[in-house]
Amino acid sequence: MKASSRVRNLPTPSVQRLPVYLRFLKEARNRGDDVVSCTRIAEEFGQRSVQVRKDLAITGVSGRPKVGYRVDELIEAIESFLGWDVKTTAFLVGVGNLGRAILNYEGFVAHGLDVVAAFDANPTLFGQEINGRLVRPLDQIAATAERLRREEGRIVEMGIVTVPARAAQPVADKLVGIGVRAIWNYAPIRLDLPSDVVYEEVKLSASFAVLTNRLRRRDVAE
Amino acid sequence: MKASSRVRNLPTPSVQRLPVYLRFLKEARNRGDDVVSCTRIAEEFGQRSVQVRKDLAITGVSGRPKVGYRVDELIEAIESFLGWDVKTTAFLVGVGNLGRAILNYEGFVAHGLDVVAAFDANPTLFGQEINGRLVRPLDQIAATAERLRREEGRIVEMGIVTVPARAAQPVADKLVGIGVRAIWNYAPIRLDLPSDVVYEEVKLSASFAVLTNRLRRRDVAE
Repeated sequence: MKASSRVRNLPTPSVQRLPVYLRFLKEARNRGDDVVSCTRIAEEFGQRSVQVRKDLAITGVSGRPKVGYRVDELIEAIESFLGWDVKTTAFLVGVGNLGRAILNYEGFVAHGLDVVAAFDANPTLFGQEINGRLVRPLDQIAATAERLRREEGRIVEMGIVTVPARAAQPVADKLVGIGVRAIWNYAPIRLDLPSDVVYEEVKLSASFAVLTNRLRRRDVAE
Repeated sequence: MKASSRVRNLPTPSVQRLPVYLRFLKEARNRGDDVVSCTRIAEEFGQRSVQVRKDLAITGVSGRPKVGYRVDELIEAIESFLGWDVKTTAFLVGVGNLGRAILNYEGFVAHGLDVVAAFDANPTLFGQEINGRLVRPLDQIAATAERLRREEGRIVEMGIVTVPARAAQPVADKLVGIGVRAIWNYAPIRLDLPSDVVYEEVKLSASFAVLTNRLRRRDVAE
């Protein structure tokens, strides 16, 4: 499929670095800077400026030689490229601490994330409100999605999975069942999904592995 | 420095994949499998078997041709390589939802993480107990580390930063001040640390960026 081959060809590390550049550019704008050079960005993040130029080029914007990037234009290009200039309607499943952290974090809201409903299997949580969202019973996912579509014309595009590992696959299946086109998985398990569903895992164990491995090798080297 | 050059030369993506292999191997052991082939692991994760062999080789273990890896030996090698066979004594700072999620998650405990104390700047949290850890005032970090060293002979090796972005750098400085040798940062900001401190960020925005970018490009491609 053309869509998926295009999806695979973009360099993921470049996409992953864009939010960091974006934050820096917004700070520059707040300071009143109109223009910022590639070298300046590279310095800030300890990157080679060739790499920064390559990263930014995927958004379709290129800086002018000896001048640099127009800050406004680059901010807009990055936000548009990431889809952060539009709303992403989402359901979140699993209202433990991790789910609550996401519901309470305004950073994602600024990037367009709009979690319209939260679900859990635990009846003691039903009816609780977390940052404006009511916790609903897990078995109301389909009905809630249908009501949103009918009454507000809104389509749920993303499912955020913050349940324990053993519950993650059935929850993801339910979310795929209501037609979400993206799954953001925080459970420490790989999910099996249809190939047309965009999938991203937050791998906390991978991060911990890198950290402890470096720490122990430093022990040995000392 | 030799230590840091050695630290940099290992392929991070390989290290990041080891926890996933480890989980799979433990499941295999639970099923009673003594041996597992590289091809079998590669199939499970949709990787090329050349890549799996390379990933696993960094632990120092190699499979026998036509037989595969001894499950027990490989589990032990991965755990030892990651430093997950020893305890990592840690302080956690920032007892919001994210901090609580980490304190309550037993998965990291199984990998040796031992968070011995939690800290926050919010007085209403002082004295609360979260999964067996008392929340202490932020300004008691140094005194608590000193008491642990004196009374229990324990050295705090890692600091986990789960405070908001604006508070993260001063908190990291405090942790470096008590001598931690690794910082695990969940705050959405890059921290400036001495070069001999091992550093790892959990970049939730990077993950969200990859997801929304793929979702929007899929829109365009359809």
